[in-house]
Amino acid sequence: LDEGFICHVGFVNDGQPFVIPTGYGRVGDNLYIHGSAASRMLRTLQQGVEMCVTVTLVDGLVLARSAFHHSMNYRSVVAFGRATLVEDQAEKLRALTAISEQIVRGRWEDARKPTAQEMKATTVLALPLTEVSAKIRTGPPKDDDEDYALPIWAGVVPVKLEYKEPVPDPKLTGAPPVPEYLYKPKG
Amino acid sequence: LDEGFICHVGFVNDGQPFVIPTGYGRVGDNLYIHGSAASRMLRTLQQGVEMCVTVTLVDGLVLARSAFHHSMNYRSVVAFGRATLVEDQAEKLRALTAISEQIVRGRWEDARKPTAQEMKATTVLALPLTEVSAKIRTGPPKDDDEDYALPIWAGVVPVKLEYKEPVPDPKLTGAPPVPEYLYKPKG
Repeated sequence: LDEGFICHVGFVNDGQPFVIPTGYGRVGDNLYIHGSAASRMLRTLQQGVEMCVTVTLVDGLVLARSAFHHSMNYRSVVAFGRATLVEDQAEKLRALTAISEQIVRGRWEDARKPTAQEMKATTVLALPLTEVSAKIRTGPPKDDDEDYALPIWAGVVPVKLEYKEPVPDPKLTGAPPVPEYLYKPKG
Repeated sequence: LDEGFICHVGFVNDGQPFVIPTGYGRVGDNLYIHGSAASRMLRTLQQGVEMCVTVTLVDGLVLARSAFHHSMNYRSVVAFGRATLVEDQAEKLRALTAISEQIVRGRWEDARKPTAQEMKATTVLALPLTEVSAKIRTGPPKDDDEDYALPIWAGVVPVKLEYKEPVPDPKLTGAPPVPEYLYKPKG
């Protein structure tokens, strides 16, 4: 959970399942998501309906000799439960800090902090991490015994989400240097 | 849809929403997913329940001067509908080929093709792409007018999922060379 920064939130509205990508943060045993107070997803979830949050990190493509045994190395976490609206201002600020730090560590300290009006326009929900399952696959491909002799290359192609050279906003004034924390990738 | 290879599938089972990551492929106006015939997700979905498939590509972290205006550049597709079981063997094989090519272009041709027994152990579902919405954000951050003068760095950190140097299976025999298609990243 601490290595990713995008989760997929599942919920049901009028019998229709929705899956929406969003950022998240973790503080202790709570997972936090946030968004505009006008967001349909957040307005639905704050009613305390059943939800599911999934975080998936793909680590590698597993190429077996047989098409059938192709796979992926990955780590995923699935959390179930009901969210509650975070009304305590201190907790809300801690949650927003955590969501920001999850994406770019060091940024929150640097950025202009939210005003009272911005806090009001932001909804933060907490999902207690009580019903959680994790899945992981690592290592080389597994083929059927008789396939190992086939003259087919097999192995793993590692996959990594990389942060590239920062691109300054064209409207940047005063030419502040690129912050050092952008060169310290997380995880 | 053609650039990603992981989707998150949402469905409801006994009132509980589930969000499960899996590979996918597209052929014409159908999105295909596959898995073990024993998979709970596939057994639920093949009953034709409402489902939601979301593909998310993160392109960049958008760092505004204010914490409030931080965002992400991304492309996402959300598809709704009901899946049907693919029983036609030719379509099933085309779907499996597409799912494989979506992940590593060129691999299917090289790999040992599925046996009749393996085909039987694999379930393929088709979701017609009729109810689909796409969302995209690109470009630099947008700040409040009065924040542009702040001495805070702002811009975009591009993010990219990269395929790294392939790692051969330790059980590789006869030392086949690393296939050239592994050096041609998709997209």
